[in-house]
Amino acid sequence: MNTLSLQQRFQGLRSNKAFELFVVSVILFSAIVVGAKTYDLPPIMLMLVSWLDVFITVIFLVELTIRFIGEEHKKNFFKNPWNIFDTIIVVASLIPVEESDMAFIGRLLRIFRVLRMISIIPELRVLLNSLLKALPQLGYVMLLMFIIFYIYAAIGSTLFAHINPVLWGDISISLLTLFRVMTFEDWTDVMYETMEVYGLSWIYFLTFIFLTAFAFLNMVIGIVVSVIEKENAKEDAAHNTEPTLSELQQEIKELKSMIQAMPKNVNAEGKS
Amino acid sequence: MNTLSLQQRFQGLRSNKAFELFVVSVILFSAIVVGAKTYDLPPIMLMLVSWLDVFITVIFLVELTIRFIGEEHKKNFFKNPWNIFDTIIVVASLIPVEESDMAFIGRLLRIFRVLRMISIIPELRVLLNSLLKALPQLGYVMLLMFIIFYIYAAIGSTLFAHINPVLWGDISISLLTLFRVMTFEDWTDVMYETMEVYGLSWIYFLTFIFLTAFAFLNMVIGIVVSVIEKENAKEDAAHNTEPTLSELQQEIKELKSMIQAMPKNVNAEGKS
Amino acid sequence: MNTLSLQQRFQGLRSNKAFELFVVSVILFSAIVVGAKTYDLPPIMLMLVSWLDVFITVIFLVELTIRFIGEEHKKNFFKNPWNIFDTIIVVASLIPVEESDMAFIGRLLRIFRVLRMISIIPELRVLLNSLLKALPQLGYVMLLMFIIFYIYAAIGSTLFAHINPVLWGDISISLLTLFRVMTFEDWTDVMYETMEVYGLSWIYFLTFIFLTAFAFLNMVIGIVVSVIEKENAKEDAAHNTEPTLSELQQEIKELKSMIQAMPKNVNAEGKS
Amino acid sequence: MNTLSLQQRFQGLRSNKAFELFVVSVILFSAIVVGAKTYDLPPIMLMLVSWLDVFITVIFLVELTIRFIGEEHKKNFFKNPWNIFDTIIVVASLIPVEESDMAFIGRLLRIFRVLRMISIIPELRVLLNSLLKALPQLGYVMLLMFIIFYIYAAIGSTLFAHINPVLWGDISISLLTLFRVMTFEDWTDVMYETMEVYGLSWIYFLTFIFLTAFAFLNMVIGIVVSVIEKENAKEDAAHNTEPTLSELQQEIKELKSMIQAMPKNVNAEGKS
Repeated sequence: MNTLSLQQRFQGLRSNKAFELFVVSVILFSAIVVGAKTYDLPPIMLMLVSWLDVFITVIFLVELTIRFIGEEHKKNFFKNPWNIFDTIIVVASLIPVEESDMAFIGRLLRIFRVLRMISIIPELRVLLNSLLKALPQLGYVMLLMFIIFYIYAAIGSTLFAHINPVLWGDISISLLTLFRVMTFEDWTDVMYETMEVYGLSWIYFLTFIFLTAFAFLNMVIGIVVSVIEKENAKEDAAHNTEPTLSELQQEIKELKSMIQAMPKNVNAEGKS
Repeated sequence: MNTLSLQQRFQGLRSNKAFELFVVSVILFSAIVVGAKTYDLPPIMLMLVSWLDVFITVIFLVELTIRFIGEEHKKNFFKNPWNIFDTIIVVASLIPVEESDMAFIGRLLRIFRVLRMISIIPELRVLLNSLLKALPQLGYVMLLMFIIFYIYAAIGSTLFAHINPVLWGDISISLLTLFRVMTFEDWTDVMYETMEVYGLSWIYFLTFIFLTAFAFLNMVIGIVVSVIEKENAKEDAAHNTEPTLSELQQEIKELKSMIQAMPKNVNAEGKS
Repeated sequence: MNTLSLQQRFQGLRSNKAFELFVVSVILFSAIVVGAKTYDLPPIMLMLVSWLDVFITVIFLVELTIRFIGEEHKKNFFKNPWNIFDTIIVVASLIPVEESDMAFIGRLLRIFRVLRMISIIPELRVLLNSLLKALPQLGYVMLLMFIIFYIYAAIGSTLFAHINPVLWGDISISLLTLFRVMTFEDWTDVMYETMEVYGLSWIYFLTFIFLTAFAFLNMVIGIVVSVIEKENAKEDAAHNTEPTLSELQQEIKELKSMIQAMPKNVNAEGKS
Repeated sequence: MNTLSLQQRFQGLRSNKAFELFVVSVILFSAIVVGAKTYDLPPIMLMLVSWLDVFITVIFLVELTIRFIGEEHKKNFFKNPWNIFDTIIVVASLIPVEESDMAFIGRLLRIFRVLRMISIIPELRVLLNSLLKALPQLGYVMLLMFIIFYIYAAIGSTLFAHINPVLWGDISISLLTLFRVMTFEDWTDVMYETMEVYGLSWIYFLTFIFLTAFAFLNMVIGIVVSVIEKENAKEDAAHNTEPTLSELQQEIKELKSMIQAMPKNVNAEGKS
């Protein structure tokens, strides 16, 4: 059995549906193990869970090795960001982290294993890519919203800091308070408190709510429109095999010149 | 009077508008009876209500029998899921449930009778079907959202369990708490509590809100776009009787070849 | 000066822009008077306000009379629902209501005068009509939502009435509590209370939130799609002066038959 | 070196990308300085911050001067509202405001410097312009909503003023309370309080929520539709180089008349 045949065999295994299902099951199982750890478990169960943890790490390592060997061009393997993500998750799981300081990071890595669901299921990968594609077009709206937030936070911490330092103490706390106001979470409590000192401070809160709600609305509509535009562009591309009206017009013009060239001869001949 | 004529008579009754209206009225009446039971009623009224209950059950039984006899092919009757639903509701109502244990299930069945409105009114059936059709396309977004929820719940119960076990005790309670945060229901109370221990825990809450809001937004837009696409497809289908531009182009080409075939003969003849 | 010329003069006055502006100003003024009454006013101001009230009533009566006389066909005047609305508001203002029992209804009528803004400004009338047109298509979704609400309210008042009769006492109170849950208003307080008795009652609340949110979402999308459809229909109608592709195809076919009829003659002649 | 060459040089500097980036950095830096002031700083830092403030003011002044000199037609400079905005911000920063009364206005002006981001970054300017364009079409919906708010506020302050004067004391406080109800912020607390006196006051709150939610929904849909319409109009304009179907029909008609004019001659000749 030579290396090549091994690679081919692993390539076959990699694109096998049953293998994919098995990996998904292991990921789901690791998610349940992560969840189980958050309950108060008897010592026997704790030991079982840590054994399962080792078992899952081994399977993940084997699976990654299979996928790596199955890859024809080894360089392409690390060009795929999902493979890099998988490798980091798996390699990091191998590092023994039992000291109190590192234990949290070890746990976090085990939690992030659930994210491997996205790297395994193609539909989720497509979904996430479409989400990431929508991000840049949101960039400038986000910037505009941050400018609004920043100006209101600066005004808020200047005016209201002495009323309630817990909510308006400095600009970063004010930003958090304004985010709370935007989600309408007990925003009237915040407002009534400031209105006792500055009777007109409702102007501050109402203009802020209108501005952010308006900007947010615009953002949503912007995405809807751009998505619909893309759909229309796709549809137009699908109709590309159809001739354009200009092409039809050109053909009719050619017909005309053909006919114009024709009857004169007939007449000339008839006369002769 | 033979069986066939009985079936035909029942078939007529079944598609009778007045009969449909009568059944809708009985359902509405049964809904009012269900509602009435939740009030403190004098004994005389309670007896009346239980008599009405028996009366409604009998009518429903008769109505179902009419519809069953009115059906030409008895097998098709149970192929319609609404008929199965109706049969279960009606048959289950016949079982006497007066013991304390079963009383609740009996009441529940009487409540679900209101759902028969959907099986009777065709417009509601259409509406529900369109709702159910939208479900599968939401599937993967739901899965992605559950992954986000699960990871945040695992982190949350690891970090915050010792701060407030009522909210973050284990992963299932944490999932409920996160759902509450997503609905903005007193989410700042939850955050401020954790911020007293971990000053940076606002990052946890803000990233969670952004991720879920963003995923939800995408979901809504996805449905809107897919619905619009379907509408466009319908419209295109409606225009199907129109010839395509390609067909027109083909006809013009045929015209050209006709004309090209013609004048040569004229010339040839003229020359002779 | 005869009746006809009076009618014509009033007709001119009615369509006069300055007259419309004057009526709008009087309505705005009456709105301010209504608002002023809600403040604690000194007796002198109260008297002034009640005098202004009489003054506004007189102007409205005069304006309505002008519009009635200006109408050519007196019967058409009461075919317009806005005219009926105006007449009721104005006539009802004439009834003296100073007794404590009727005083509230009198005040209410003065408040509803502000609604005359809609009957005067054409753009607002258009807007309201488009809102009313959207209502019937919402009908069945509303019915479906009410069925969901009713079933949950019946279950809720059966299960939770003994936990908190203030929120779940009978089916009508339960409906109000469920509406509160749908608006996410302190819904976790309602849930946590029931979860202390029935640990699984979160299923009740989460399924309710999903069902109503999902139905609401569908409703919104339904309106958006139907509005877009109408816009497309309008656009199609605007393109109606353009010939259809079928018409073009027909014309090309006529061309073909013309040419097909022609060359045979030429050939026939050539041969002769 | 004459004035003209100076203007050209400044014109070049103005459209220089590096210069733009430098100005953006200074604005960002000034935003951080504004933010820093909201923290409790040691005296040495406070002095540093006030020195930085002077430094930023000088840079802004120099930058504005460069842009003014770089402008070919000095009159056009003040036709651009963004230039007027920049000038006001910069000139106002020069006024020394250290007295307690004016200090707040001075601080506010420093905060508004962050808005210069919008005047410098073209993409944000485009975004803001599109936001402002959407405003007029919202005008009438806003007016309709204000009428609804005003009528409910008038009814609310008439009915509920004696229950809770803090929430319903006069019409302006009632308007604020109703805005709170619209954002669902503890609206049940407001309702339960009034329901203890008037058992049917839930009708007031539910109709208000339905009316405002419905009007708001319509507003959003209105904007979406108008934006989509504009997109369609743009697309139609892009297809303008294409001939219309009418033009094609005209050309086919010309063809027909050409052919109709032709065969008669042939026949005539043939007959002769």
